[in-house]
Amino acid sequence: MTNFADRLITAIRQKHSPCIVGLDPRVENMPTFVLSAIDTDDGLRRTIATFHRLVIDSIADLIPAVKPQTAFFEQYGIPGILALADTIGYARSRGLLVIVDGKRNDIGSTAEAYARAFLGGGHPSLQGDALTVSPYLGRDSLLPFVDACQKHGTGIFVLVKTSNRGSGDLQDLTLAGEAKTIYDKVAELVASLGETVLGSSGYSSIGAVVGATYPEQAAQIRGRMPKAIILVPGYGAQGGTAQDVVPCFHPGGLGAIVSASRSITYELPNRHISEVDFQSLVRARVEKMNAAIDSVLSL
Amino acid sequence: MTNFADRLITAIRQKHSPCIVGLDPRVENMPTFVLSAIDTDDGLRRTIATFHRLVIDSIADLIPAVKPQTAFFEQYGIPGILALADTIGYARSRGLLVIVDGKRNDIGSTAEAYARAFLGGGHPSLQGDALTVSPYLGRDSLLPFVDACQKHGTGIFVLVKTSNRGSGDLQDLTLAGEAKTIYDKVAELVASLGETVLGSSGYSSIGAVVGATYPEQAAQIRGRMPKAIILVPGYGAQGGTAQDVVPCFHPGGLGAIVSASRSITYELPNRHISEVDFQSLVRARVEKMNAAIDSVLSL
Repeated sequence: MTNFADRLITAIRQKHSPCIVGLDPRVENMPTFVLSAIDTDDGLRRTIATFHRLVIDSIADLIPAVKPQTAFFEQYGIPGILALADTIGYARSRGLLVIVDGKRNDIGSTAEAYARAFLGGGHPSLQGDALTVSPYLGRDSLLPFVDACQKHGTGIFVLVKTSNRGSGDLQDLTLAGEAKTIYDKVAELVASLGETVLGSSGYSSIGAVVGATYPEQAAQIRGRMPKAIILVPGYGAQGGTAQDVVPCFHPGGLGAIVSASRSITYELPNRHISEVDFQSLVRARVEKMNAAIDSVLSL
Repeated sequence: MTNFADRLITAIRQKHSPCIVGLDPRVENMPTFVLSAIDTDDGLRRTIATFHRLVIDSIADLIPAVKPQTAFFEQYGIPGILALADTIGYARSRGLLVIVDGKRNDIGSTAEAYARAFLGGGHPSLQGDALTVSPYLGRDSLLPFVDACQKHGTGIFVLVKTSNRGSGDLQDLTLAGEAKTIYDKVAELVASLGETVLGSSGYSSIGAVVGATYPEQAAQIRGRMPKAIILVPGYGAQGGTAQDVVPCFHPGGLGAIVSASRSITYELPNRHISEVDFQSLVRARVEKMNAAIDSVLSL
């Protein structure tokens, strides 16, 4: 299978967009027309799956990828996870790459099992194109994921610097004897692991998550991992602006993808919006985001 | 609902054991008698669920808790997660506490969603008594879990020092201007968060994961978090011995739980073992582990 970084770069060029949409089911914020017997397991599953199919249909031609967030599906238990499988499969059938935002990790054979679950080799129901991964357990915990990326043409995005205020509690601490923070150290790890999964685009399938809320740190991190694709969450609802994401990109407009979730699919003017108006609204919001990001990049 | 730490301490006293068993489905290592149409989704689900029911029935009276590992279920996709729900529900129905080993975390509303999924407030299918949680995203990422523990009488175990060799890559790094490592800093965070969820036992529902493979560091960490219950993985298959876990306990034999997985449920002398012999073997292994841990503690 083609290298994930190459598939992503190709999709970014084809869609003329580095924007992705986060899919975070929050039934209490969905338009009322989609709600169907949500007090039953089957109704709940159907509601979440249908909502995402409508979103995907509205925007599949505008963006390279979607990012389902596992926590929001898992809070709905088995019906939620059945809907996650549906959403992953439907997005892929519509030509979108799927980045499963699960922030998984563990050691040894357990990391291998997570890699099989989401990156290839396991049961097909939850297989995506990439997975977000946490680095706290160290280099050897990441190797099984890197192996899976090599073998199955999939990718990972390792948490480097997150968009929350508390990200500083650990990530920003400076290490003794080195003029480096913990996130610098993780960025170096990402760069080093990435050398083994380089695509012909020059980018690696081992990417990084760097929050849009810290532009100065983003510039520094970009420099430490020249071949990594940066996944930038926090655009829109979390306060990041188009200008803030610029340091995550290379000159020329490649090297990062920017994610928005709530600000695209929720925050409706009226929950009694019609299906047609909902799809138009979601599409218009993605077009606006594409234009905003495009205006600050020379893609 | 009663405080999780109190429920766990009560169970440890009743069963006269601080040992727990990890449930990690590996169909390729299961006894052949349990395998049933595993090339079909329904057969796969039934096989995994049945295997765990047999294990639980063998040992429910011997130990306070079981620890299903989510990665090993997720690798089997939807059938695996249906079996996880069955395993969680069955273990609780047999009076065992369930520690979901998912090493979840994220920021803000996403952490809240994970807390609802596993610690109370969400759909009932995946609700356990406690969840393992990763600390890389900082204090504010842990607060939604702490809130859920307060509200629902559940608990978390935060990764402090893991049992893998690569745990040193980040966790052991020394911070500038402080004679402290990153894991020390996380241990202090655990101690501080734990103050708000203290039980009448004196222990907190905010616990920590500390690998059995580093006894010196364990002693130091124990000192930094006097009220935290330590979950010690890595006993048995990962090389930790009964003597190695002693520093995680307080004098008197409380303060930690010790987990073994593969060495209890797999590593069979013969995969063609009968159902009766399998259940006897699993029971004998847990009795042996209980005796080994008991011999080094003054419980």
